[in-house]
Amino acid sequence: MNWCNEGERIDEIGFGSLRLIQKPEDFCYGIDAVLLASFAEVKRGSRVIDLGTGTGIIPLILSHKTEADEILGVELQQDSYERGLRNIELNHLHDRVKLIHSDVKDILGDKNINPQSFDAVLSNPPYMKGNGGLKNQKDAKTIARHETTAGLSDFIGTAASLLKDKGDFYLVHRPSRLVDICILCRQNKLEPKELRLVSPNRNRKPNILLMHCVKHGRPELKFLDPLYVYEENGCYTEEILRIYERK
Amino acid sequence: MNWCNEGERIDEIGFGSLRLIQKPEDFCYGIDAVLLASFAEVKRGSRVIDLGTGTGIIPLILSHKTEADEILGVELQQDSYERGLRNIELNHLHDRVKLIHSDVKDILGDKNINPQSFDAVLSNPPYMKGNGGLKNQKDAKTIARHETTAGLSDFIGTAASLLKDKGDFYLVHRPSRLVDICILCRQNKLEPKELRLVSPNRNRKPNILLMHCVKHGRPELKFLDPLYVYEENGCYTEEILRIYERK
Repeated sequence: MNWCNEGERIDEIGFGSLRLIQKPEDFCYGIDAVLLASFAEVKRGSRVIDLGTGTGIIPLILSHKTEADEILGVELQQDSYERGLRNIELNHLHDRVKLIHSDVKDILGDKNINPQSFDAVLSNPPYMKGNGGLKNQKDAKTIARHETTAGLSDFIGTAASLLKDKGDFYLVHRPSRLVDICILCRQNKLEPKELRLVSPNRNRKPNILLMHCVKHGRPELKFLDPLYVYEENGCYTEEILRIYERK
Repeated sequence: MNWCNEGERIDEIGFGSLRLIQKPEDFCYGIDAVLLASFAEVKRGSRVIDLGTGTGIIPLILSHKTEADEILGVELQQDSYERGLRNIELNHLHDRVKLIHSDVKDILGDKNINPQSFDAVLSNPPYMKGNGGLKNQKDAKTIARHETTAGLSDFIGTAASLLKDKGDFYLVHRPSRLVDICILCRQNKLEPKELRLVSPNRNRKPNILLMHCVKHGRPELKFLDPLYVYEENGCYTEEILRIYERK
């Protein structure tokens, strides 16, 4: 069988024997998705959902790293969703991983999705603020990176609706949005409990933020140890190598 | 003249020839106050106020480090306030530094204080959440460390009222309260613009947070480089030595 359409390629991405069909011209997954999938503590038997899943990279990694029973991904873009379906087949994961073709905002209208039914919600949403003046609003890279359709408040509000009481919400985003994230999470009863800041190396300020919230959790934020991506010599740090399972 | 009462001592604290009367049994200033006074960018000719000033350590350091015209400090505790007055005399600073004996909550009722009249507000407030069950509520150390009288929302609300449009608010606090700080600041139109995290050393998570907000500022938080207090060999880092003017 030929798995690829024009412009697509299959990458061996580590994590056991996982393989991923991507279309580099549109969007390739980055370290943010890998860090988020590793940051999340998903318990055996859990039901998990990833909001804005792209071609399914986070559900795929979770299927390898965790013993979750059911892993859903929600994706709006037709091309990414369809590529994600092929990724599930390519990796023989249709028993545990499912994709839904929907805007995150509308997911609660899906007849297969019940509110307060998930143990964990993950999201690696678009980072850039919506901008009415953006060119190429329908361009795949633009939608993946900008809040053109759903905004941060939609992702957080939907996560809150989907989670069980005391369920876990894991978010990766830019540090510059920390204030918005804190405010939106608390407004939606997702209390920020753990914050991990990721820097390129020990001498640089953080450029990625990992947040763990608990639905109806008690207010008290714990800072976790910072995570550095590179050593000063330009190699990955030990921790990043462990996360990528190359060590 | 004998400057000290029973149990008090005079410390040479660096910063030019500044000296400070303290009563160790009650409360001694810590590195947090020094870091805050150094973090604040106070312009020449400014009017500045420090909320919860204790014996005046922050106004004293600002009188040395900046060219502010007028530096006020507000303190509720009678003993600290009175010791602060002596510190101003001891250092011949009565032309530029003044103290007000008041609860932070009530300061806008003072006939000498006008709303929206300050260029910068600083605060190193009590860190511990108020607790009705605390013993020794009147104990000086307890009031200095706990939100027994004014709480974080009072400090932030008062800062907002005192500041001119686009005025600067500088706060030092614990990282565990970051979510509360973000929410209260934005509620009060003090937009968090810069965040600096302070860790004991490069391998430890942050235990002090420095926040710079701008009244009616545009939402976008900038993370500054982390500040480390100690080298691995236990000595102060170069930056801390510079802040303490020992380098």
